[in-house]
Order: sequence, then C-alpha cells, then structure tokens
Amino acid sequence: MPPVQALLFDVFGTVVDWRSGIAREAAPFLARHGIGAMDAHAFADAWRARYQPAMEAVRSGARPFTRLDTLHRENLESLLREAGADPDAIPETELEALNRAWHRLDPWPDSVAGLLRLKQRFIIAPLSNGNVALLLNMAKRAGLPWDAILGAEVAQAYKPRPEAYLRTAEILGLPPGACMLVAAHNDDLAAARRCGLATAFVPRPAEYGPGQTKDLTPAEAWDLVAPDFGALADALGCPA
Amino acid sequence: MPPVQALLFDVFGTVVDWRSGIAREAAPFLARHGIGAMDAHAFADAWRARYQPAMEAVRSGARPFTRLDTLHRENLESLLREAGADPDAIPETELEALNRAWHRLDPWPDSVAGLLRLKQRFIIAPLSNGNVALLLNMAKRAGLPWDAILGAEVAQAYKPRPEAYLRTAEILGLPPGACMLVAAHNDDLAAARRCGLATAFVPRPAEYGPGQTKDLTPAEAWDLVAPDFGALADALGCPA
Repeated sequence: MPPVQALLFDVFGTVVDWRSGIAREAAPFLARHGIGAMDAHAFADAWRARYQPAMEAVRSGARPFTRLDTLHRENLESLLREAGADPDAIPETELEALNRAWHRLDPWPDSVAGLLRLKQRFIIAPLSNGNVALLLNMAKRAGLPWDAILGAEVAQAYKPRPEAYLRTAEILGLPPGACMLVAAHNDDLAAARRCGLATAFVPRPAEYGPGQTKDLTPAEAWDLVAPDFGALADALGCPA
Repeated sequence: MPPVQALLFDVFGTVVDWRSGIAREAAPFLARHGIGAMDAHAFADAWRARYQPAMEAVRSGARPFTRLDTLHRENLESLLREAGADPDAIPETELEALNRAWHRLDPWPDSVAGLLRLKQRFIIAPLSNGNVALLLNMAKRAGLPWDAILGAEVAQAYKPRPEAYLRTAEILGLPPGACMLVAAHNDDLAAARRCGLATAFVPRPAEYGPGQTKDLTPAEAWDLVAPDFGALADALGCPA
C-alpha cells in the first residue's frame, strides 16, 4: 500500500454534530409554527431519516444528480406535511433559513484542533455527501481548515457508490491507496475499502443521541481506530 | 448589484508568478539534457504559449474536458520535440517532475498576506483553468489559504467559456453578482462581466517578464482596480 497522502473525511456525524445543530434551529421554528407535537431532536432524527432514501433515487439513476441542499429542502417539506403543517403557508425565507441549518452545524470538540494538526502532514478534505456550498459555509463558520472541498457534488455521485471515492482520489491525482477515509460509520468505511482506500474509524457514540446502538465499535479491522481526531493525529505521527 | 460575498481568483499570473517558477525548474532540466539552445525563460514562455491553443480544443468541443495537467504534459512533449529533443528518450519520472513544476509556483510577494486579510470577510477561491490537484498542491506548498478549490475542472469548462464563471457561482449557491473575479487579465474580466460577475483588476506588470506590453492598464472601467492584494483588501474594507 502506498503511503497515505490525503485524509478524506465523512462530515455529518464524523466531523460535526448534525443532531444537536438541527434541533437547536428547529426548536424555535416548531414553536413559532405550532408544530408542538414533535420534539426538536425527534424532528432532527426524522429529517435525517429521509436522507438515505432521497440519495437512493440519485444512486439508482431514477433522477439525475441533485445536490443535497435540494434534497434537504424536499425532505423538509414532506416532513412538515407529515407533522400536520402546510409548508406552502410558511414564508419562503423561513423555510430556506431552516434548510440552511445544515450549513451551520457545530464540530465535535476535538475536530478543529485535530484537523489543524493533521493538515500539517496531509491533504485534508471532506468526502461528504454534502454539496460544496453547504460544506464551505459550514467550514467558514466553524473554522474547519480544509485544503479543498470535495465529495459527492464534485464527483457527481453519492456515497457509497464507488465513483464517489474513486473520482475523489483521481481528482487529487492520487491512487486510491494514498487516500484514507476517516469516518464514524462502518458502512462508509467498507465501501471505501472496497475501492482500495485506507480506512480510519473514529466512533461518535453520541451522533444519534443517548440511545445510539450502531457504529459504536469497528465492524472490520480498519487500518486505524481512534477515539477522536487528536488521537488520530497521534496515531499518524502529527506533531502536537 | 448584490453585495459581493465571494472573491474568485485567476491564479496563473494573478496569484502566482508562473514564468519565474517554470524557468527555475526548467533550467537544470534543459542543461541536463543538452537542450542548451533555449533559455529557461524562453522555454517557460514557449510552454505557456501552447496553453490557450490546447484549451481551445476543449472549448470548441473538439475533445472532451481534459484537465490541465494532461494538456501541460502534451505541450511539454511537443515543445521538447520542437527544441530538437526526443521526449521518449527522457525518463518518465523526469518529464513528470518537470510537468509538476506548475504545482510549485511561487506567489507574488503580496498574495498570501492579502488573501489572509480578504478571507476574513469573503469566501476566497481560485477560479482558474488549473486542475484541482495542481491548485491544491500549489496552495499547500505556498500557503494560499483558499476556502475551496474551484475552477475549470469542477465546472468542467475552461475560461473564458461562460459556463466556467456561471457554474462556479452556482456551485457556491450565489448569484453571479455576489461573486467578484480578481484577475490580472482584461480578457478574463471581460468574460466574467458578461456573465454578471463583479470585477477587480490587479495588474501584474512582470508576469511576462521585463518586456511586457499587455494588461498593464485596465481596458474597461472595472469595479475595482488595485495595485496588489493588500490594496484590494483595503479597498474592500478588510481589517489589516
């Protein structure tokens, strides 16, 4: 295996805490519109639950590549209808502002400091299903020091399609084995490994809230397992 | 016109000094291979002269989108042949190393400090015909603090095709008027203006060496004209 030159990061769950961020912004919205039956964290979970099915329509070829901001917005409207609200009766600016909550997620406490260390020795970039504008706005707000913004929109393919991993390596001018995916999700790592990428598992046991049961432990013998990005930087020999 | 949110930069000539960088790396190569008839700066100029014709084949649709690393390599081989050398007799690693000189260009003295100031208030990204790996490797080496790496490869269109400018704005989720192209080249700015982008002209009178005659002054009334990136940051109200 060639030495790793680029670290590619899953973002939602691995770098940032989507559940708390979405709940924080959904709470006043739900209160304002009288959608009180749904707890803000349950709302975040329900919005996120529509994520994979929406991408599946693109992965299967049923619809052309559509960026995640658009899928999030469609999912928001269908979720509001399911919760008994009429999105057409809510001002466009409010819907758009809530949809942009995905651009304003907070990193886990170790993310920024770890990335700054890793950046000294490696190319660091997201390999996320988030679109470029979403990832860029998130990075500007949170101080995520990416070298480039890569992922599904640049590759025009959603993970775990092999094209998402292989085109990202190819754009970097690197063989897949010179790239390492860092993710909190075993299925993402498994897909990356099938494409020849190195793999690092960083579990995020609070991603899905206090009752999380999945992705608590490595499902395969990943190349690295680290409890946070600081430990990952240690394992990869990055100076503190 | 909406307020500008993103500053998009031409790179070769505007941010970095391609002529000195290519000449620096070409000199020992030319000496080693006995291609002594050609001065290293003339070699850099001749290599660069093949840049627009090579992209024109893509712009016209005569060939599919091909990244600049590949065009640079093809142009290097044809230039060597024209100079009386046989590229097939030169080790692949040497050709590839010289081709990667485009990844190792030095910024103008004001570039990094100016970008760091501009980054505090704006999204900053290249909108270059360079490919992602080239621009990323250049940025890592030179300390160019881009928020994202955009341009021809991401847009799948070479400047001055309108798609290069319009798709870049669209990927950022911004109307064209919220983007400003910063360039040392009047023709690039003219194409950006036709697409609705704001324009800033930063002349680089040494780009083509001591005898430069073009792009010394603004050809139109651009939105901003500044002698360097520090003055551009001043004009845009960025704290020092």
